Amino acid sequence: MPAGFLKHPFMSQHAVDACDDSAMVHAMLAFELALAEVQETSGAVPNGVSQQMRSQLESANFNVADIAEGIASGGNVAIPFVKQGRALLADELKRYWHQGATSQDVVDSALMLLLKPRLAALDALLLRCCSAATALMEAHIDTPMVGRTLMQQALPITFGVKVAHWAIGLEQSRRRLSYIELPVQFGGAVGVHSGWDVLGLEWMDALAERLGLAAPVLPWHTDRYPIHALGSALDAVAGAAEKIALDVSLLTQTEVGEVAEPSAPGMGESSSMPHKRNPVRSAMIRAAAKQVHGHTSVLINAAAQPLERGLGEWHAEWAPLIESALLVEGALEQVAVLLEGLEVNPANMWRNLAATGGGIMAEPVARLLTPTLGADRAKAVSAEAAETARLEVRAYADVLADQPEIKGIVDADALRKACDPALYLGSSSAQVIRTKKWLENN
Amino acid sequence: MPAGFLKHPFMSQHAVDACDDSAMVHAMLAFELALAEVQETSGAVPNGVSQQMRSQLESANFNVADIAEGIASGGNVAIPFVKQGRALLADELKRYWHQGATSQDVVDSALMLLLKPRLAALDALLLRCCSAATALMEAHIDTPMVGRTLMQQALPITFGVKVAHWAIGLEQSRRRLSYIELPVQFGGAVGVHSGWDVLGLEWMDALAERLGLAAPVLPWHTDRYPIHALGSALDAVAGAAEKIALDVSLLTQTEVGEVAEPSAPGMGESSSMPHKRNPVRSAMIRAAAKQVHGHTSVLINAAAQPLERGLGEWHAEWAPLIESALLVEGALEQVAVLLEGLEVNPANMWRNLAATGGGIMAEPVARLLTPTLGADRAKAVSAEAAETARLEVRAYADVLADQPEIKGIVDADALRKACDPALYLGSSSAQVIRTKKWLENN
Amino acid sequence: MPAGFLKHPFMSQHAVDACDDSAMVHAMLAFELALAEVQETSGAVPNGVSQQMRSQLESANFNVADIAEGIASGGNVAIPFVKQGRALLADELKRYWHQGATSQDVVDSALMLLLKPRLAALDALLLRCCSAATALMEAHIDTPMVGRTLMQQALPITFGVKVAHWAIGLEQSRRRLSYIELPVQFGGAVGVHSGWDVLGLEWMDALAERLGLAAPVLPWHTDRYPIHALGSALDAVAGAAEKIALDVSLLTQTEVGEVAEPSAPGMGESSSMPHKRNPVRSAMIRAAAKQVHGHTSVLINAAAQPLERGLGEWHAEWAPLIESALLVEGALEQVAVLLEGLEVNPANMWRNLAATGGGIMAEPVARLLTPTLGADRAKAVSAEAAETARLEVRAYADVLADQPEIKGIVDADALRKACDPALYLGSSSAQVIRTKKWLENN
Amino acid sequence: MPAGFLKHPFMSQHAVDACDDSAMVHAMLAFELALAEVQETSGAVPNGVSQQMRSQLESANFNVADIAEGIASGGNVAIPFVKQGRALLADELKRYWHQGATSQDVVDSALMLLLKPRLAALDALLLRCCSAATALMEAHIDTPMVGRTLMQQALPITFGVKVAHWAIGLEQSRRRLSYIELPVQFGGAVGVHSGWDVLGLEWMDALAERLGLAAPVLPWHTDRYPIHALGSALDAVAGAAEKIALDVSLLTQTEVGEVAEPSAPGMGESSSMPHKRNPVRSAMIRAAAKQVHGHTSVLINAAAQPLERGLGEWHAEWAPLIESALLVEGALEQVAVLLEGLEVNPANMWRNLAATGGGIMAEPVARLLTPTLGADRAKAVSAEAAETARLEVRAYADVLADQPEIKGIVDADALRKACDPALYLGSSSAQVIRTKKWLENN
Repeated sequence: MPAGFLKHPFMSQHAVDACDDSAMVHAMLAFELALAEVQETSGAVPNGVSQQMRSQLESANFNVADIAEGIASGGNVAIPFVKQGRALLADELKRYWHQGATSQDVVDSALMLLLKPRLAALDALLLRCCSAATALMEAHIDTPMVGRTLMQQALPITFGVKVAHWAIGLEQSRRRLSYIELPVQFGGAVGVHSGWDVLGLEWMDALAERLGLAAPVLPWHTDRYPIHALGSALDAVAGAAEKIALDVSLLTQTEVGEVAEPSAPGMGESSSMPHKRNPVRSAMIRAAAKQVHGHTSVLINAAAQPLERGLGEWHAEWAPLIESALLVEGALEQVAVLLEGLEVNPANMWRNLAATGGGIMAEPVARLLTPTLGADRAKAVSAEAAETARLEVRAYADVLADQPEIKGIVDADALRKACDPALYLGSSSAQVIRTKKWLENN
Repeated sequence: MPAGFLKHPFMSQHAVDACDDSAMVHAMLAFELALAEVQETSGAVPNGVSQQMRSQLESANFNVADIAEGIASGGNVAIPFVKQGRALLADELKRYWHQGATSQDVVDSALMLLLKPRLAALDALLLRCCSAATALMEAHIDTPMVGRTLMQQALPITFGVKVAHWAIGLEQSRRRLSYIELPVQFGGAVGVHSGWDVLGLEWMDALAERLGLAAPVLPWHTDRYPIHALGSALDAVAGAAEKIALDVSLLTQTEVGEVAEPSAPGMGESSSMPHKRNPVRSAMIRAAAKQVHGHTSVLINAAAQPLERGLGEWHAEWAPLIESALLVEGALEQVAVLLEGLEVNPANMWRNLAATGGGIMAEPVARLLTPTLGADRAKAVSAEAAETARLEVRAYADVLADQPEIKGIVDADALRKACDPALYLGSSSAQVIRTKKWLENN
Repeated sequence: MPAGFLKHPFMSQHAVDACDDSAMVHAMLAFELALAEVQETSGAVPNGVSQQMRSQLESANFNVADIAEGIASGGNVAIPFVKQGRALLADELKRYWHQGATSQDVVDSALMLLLKPRLAALDALLLRCCSAATALMEAHIDTPMVGRTLMQQALPITFGVKVAHWAIGLEQSRRRLSYIELPVQFGGAVGVHSGWDVLGLEWMDALAERLGLAAPVLPWHTDRYPIHALGSALDAVAGAAEKIALDVSLLTQTEVGEVAEPSAPGMGESSSMPHKRNPVRSAMIRAAAKQVHGHTSVLINAAAQPLERGLGEWHAEWAPLIESALLVEGALEQVAVLLEGLEVNPANMWRNLAATGGGIMAEPVARLLTPTLGADRAKAVSAEAAETARLEVRAYADVLADQPEIKGIVDADALRKACDPALYLGSSSAQVIRTKKWLENN
Repeated sequence: MPAGFLKHPFMSQHAVDACDDSAMVHAMLAFELALAEVQETSGAVPNGVSQQMRSQLESANFNVADIAEGIASGGNVAIPFVKQGRALLADELKRYWHQGATSQDVVDSALMLLLKPRLAALDALLLRCCSAATALMEAHIDTPMVGRTLMQQALPITFGVKVAHWAIGLEQSRRRLSYIELPVQFGGAVGVHSGWDVLGLEWMDALAERLGLAAPVLPWHTDRYPIHALGSALDAVAGAAEKIALDVSLLTQTEVGEVAEPSAPGMGESSSMPHKRNPVRSAMIRAAAKQVHGHTSVLINAAAQPLERGLGEWHAEWAPLIESALLVEGALEQVAVLLEGLEVNPANMWRNLAATGGGIMAEPVARLLTPTLGADRAKAVSAEAAETARLEVRAYADVLADQPEIKGIVDADALRKACDPALYLGSSSAQVIRTKKWLENN
């Protein structure tokens, strides 16, 4: 395998194993055996044949290396697999093997079979992530922090709201993924079940049911909508994960320090710099997401395929599709750990709220002072006091309270309240509650 | 505008006009006025203020050039628009203008307002295209043609089945697009309705209703799922159109000649080559689709946006999003004309069915001969006869009938039938009927 | 034009104007007139004809709207332009107009003519940016700041080195762009100068010289290497600009505050948040770069074009190519202003160097202490002292100096030096000098 | 490995092996040993140390599985590799191991070392392809075929010219690739050789020389220009290969039949359709190229990396970069076989030249008739005759010769010549000669 080290960090081993060559052989075999069963049910194969095939082939040792060797001449794995399968069968069964099917029927269906448990795993991971996000969001429903726009401090929010957005992103993409259909492929050489007439469509539907896949309207050899829908849905999940990783990496910066990735022995440590803890999980998630975007770009540029079978467009889909799923799964495993163990530092959030000396509260303060000082003077006074507070490292409320135009004129308690970020959180807690409800209702 | 000539062919003028700067001003104004109305309803603005605003601004002449001029310093169009709007208002109204809103609220909501009629136009176009495809598919339910895989002649299908696939592609992407929600944006500076508490969420919901947009769970300043969903759904439509254009351009090739784009005065003519009619509509559709894929690539790479507001990621979305919609609309207008006026040439389809001298029927012939000649000899005889037929330009059935091993042994009528592509169409007609039902049920 | 507001911020008006429809007409006319001149020189057009053409057409008013109207039927702008040009000519000249040329000859050559001054402008801007970067780099050759890896504080560098990297990025992409050839296009209908034999190649070369374009090996109607080379070179420039904007936006964060975008009246101000100055230029640059990446994706996916002329692939190139150039030019104008006026804050750089209480100097301190304390104890002591310094907001050197295992044992001056980030800058200044030399030598 | 079957067809096994995990270990080791040698030369490591390291480690068995296991916690393969390497060394050598280096130094340099022989292989393959193309182009310098624009028959060209374009595409991208520099990476933790001052730059240069890599201006941890240049150059090669495969697949269509992929036992055969030979090599090439475009999209979207070290952007590069190289190599191997064994069918080219009944010669015929009949009538007559010729399957010249307005008036021989595609080939042969010269001169 080319440079496994360079892919390893982004995928989880068990998922990779579940999509390896051996798994692909099993999936192709599952398709062919189900086909024989379906045909036997409809009488196109003698009674007992499918059972004999199953017993002869399930115990047989397909030679993965030989199959790999044979791919080049036909251009896809189904050709050597079918050939090897036929060779393994008793003579009288050979003619019923792969009956009415074409290579793309086998490969597309096998890919869908490989992807089915992966999508289930993604759904479970997304639920796990949402659950972790929900707990975090509720725990911090009242934790004030500074909101940042264009990476500049703006006005207070809560950490709960920030996490609510993460949860929404995860759940939105989870729902999209949950609507994705994985259709069986079965159409024969040119997609019209040549030689089998309407039986072909019946078998297609029966195959879908037997394999636990969706029944398409028609064989979809060059109608790649299912791939487009799946690929872009996976990309949406990647985007949701990437957003979380981006936020975490920004909030983890040394100078910000509001959250930290969960610590684990050796995790993110730098051998040469003992003070450093790298946000390795965030890096892995972002790297995976960026690779998914590239794979998605392949899929959408290959969506239009010529006539009855693609000439390279189909072949271009295989790796990007499977790897997208694996990269997204790997990323979500990191997100889950991240959310479940995220170290939140409310003290640093408070410290940063004060970093502008109160500048971020200048707006509500000016509003309070306007009736007394007039709008222009109110703005000027509130801004000057923020600058003084910052330079002299004093509390904004204290500086304001000492201001001659204010002292004794504006109610000190009202002033203190206007300066308090924790009292200027807008709809933050209502947003968390609304998010909670939305998450539960679906 | 940069190189309008180079974009002109791909978009329809009326759609472009509906998204021009003036339309953007109207959409931003619609947002601000609706906001004032909503706030008036909840008591946050005195009675009558929103009506006064409306009468002062709807008749006012916003200066588009000045707004354009003002974009650079703030980085988005809402800033100069809001400034100009405020200047146009009577003094006592100024303080209620843009109350509680931020630039991104205005721009995102205005974009959604511009896109709403565009999505409606796309839905109508897709229905029109599907309707044209349905008529074509039904008209050709029994028109045999050769199916081609990897661009090689394979086995017979019908033209009806080919069109059925086009119809499915269009309808699948239409349904996906129909589920897309265009949410209003309203969250204020950091998305938590600072200074307005729970009123903010109420206003958001009321705004959505008043503007005919969807109500999001929360403000989505950096939760760009809606953009991802919309952008990739538009891309799916582009892919469906692109597939049709690709097939048409292949079937239109001089040597194939099975279909032709509808003729129109001057359309596709070449001044220097009188014999030539270029598939210009297919070229335009393919070019539009390819550009949409690039725009989609921008959108998916910008989906993860930092903290409470993007730093360039948001700004990168604007043009790709609007242009994707316009390109897809332009492409569908071409598809509609193409499908409604497509010239189908069944005679050439028959000619091409015979191009291999019968080679494409070698499979069913071999099957017929097997009981008599054995499988191996049956295959050889059927293949040799096809080669003879092609070289001597004779009918495959005739060549076979003269074959000594066959003559007088195999039933001549059965032989003729086995050689007839029109009798080897598999589930073609059933597929058309099935597609028809599926289209109607949804 | 669709949503000019949404593209306006990213392009400079004069460059947009230089690529507008009127400029395209001029460029196409320049091609046709040069062709007539070249043909006259070789005797294929009577003496004086080209001069007559020039005088009749240069003063004529081409009707841009009519040309735009006419694009749809032929699929490219050359067809209606050529038609209109012919109509404007005296009858006896008509037959020499557009002689031996095809639409793609006109459009490709005109695009190259539009791009030539844009590439010159890009080169000038890149030199201007490099010059600004050089000044900045030299001014800060000894300004220490913290280096950050994975956005975590790591070890000291200088601001000069950081700028040196920016300069290298700009100059590398400038050189790549400077090697780009803009070839003339001239091949006639199928690229072999049908009817003109070897004259065709002579004319091609002469045209190149006359128009100041490169002479290609052969007409390149479907050999799109020149577009691939140009598009990806533009993308490299975009990447260099994007890196600078990314660094600036990170260093500009409120909590970091090491640099600020140049202030300008109204620039980056927030109406509702007086304390805020948004890094608007960085946002614009990043947004432009991200859009360029999407355009590049179109160009590389359209590079393989069929047979003698593309079927949509060619048409898909036009807008992405021109807009990439305009976006890159707009971005570089922002970069130039950014670098020329960047506000650098060495005091904040010092403050941030101390943010970990000395943790970033723990490595050199541990190295100093190792001979005395042994490696393990040295590491522990240096790390603990950093934590103490951070918590008690004391100087790292002072805390260390008080440490019982060190006090009086390790030389105080050596200790102070080991704690001084300004003395642990590695090859920083040598890197700046090396960069300077490299920039000058090229 | 995930779905090796799905990647297998596109890569060549020996190249994959040369980039596998074991090769990566060797490359990382080569870097570390060269570093020790360089440091020994400059006195920073005692004499003999580097030799001892080499003898201890070159014979040691690095445990690839353990390294793979260890990647997750640090996020890149260098961390567990360095750890394992250190553990394998005698105690007194440990401190000199990986001295002054950072993980990214190791990984980037190792990648460059892996890529160096791959680029050499690509150059050799490109030369081999060019050589095959040259032979083909010369053999067919006078073989007429029809030129097709927008996939419609247009005017005659030669097959030699078509191949000349392929050769130019290959050679242009070869030259671009040949200018690519693979720089060593060496900068230490933050890229300034902390603790080693100017020695760092000296070591960097010496390392480059020792490893056969280029010396960069500065360490390029977040100046990813080299990756952008390499990735886009690989993509250009992919585009050149893709163009050839696209043309071949179009010319191979059953109805066109002008070329065929080289036959090989089992290659492209269809088990169910004996008459069919699929252009499998073209499909593989196109599929590889499309995947490369997606990888390139990742690389260009990750080019801007933050501050001193990427946070995921760097990690996202690894697989796309290596796989691009492997896919391009796989594609070129197919191109080489394709060009070396391409079956060219001049008879079918002649047949297709006649497919329009002479329509493609209507232009020169009309030119000939104009002096006699006037331009309008000449055009009409030539077009009508073509239609008659096509319908009656007669030679165009014969139909024309019988035309009353022509018979006995226009010289029969001149007429025959005007109808002869082989006499209307423009600069075709001159283009081949020119291409030959250009190929040789470089």
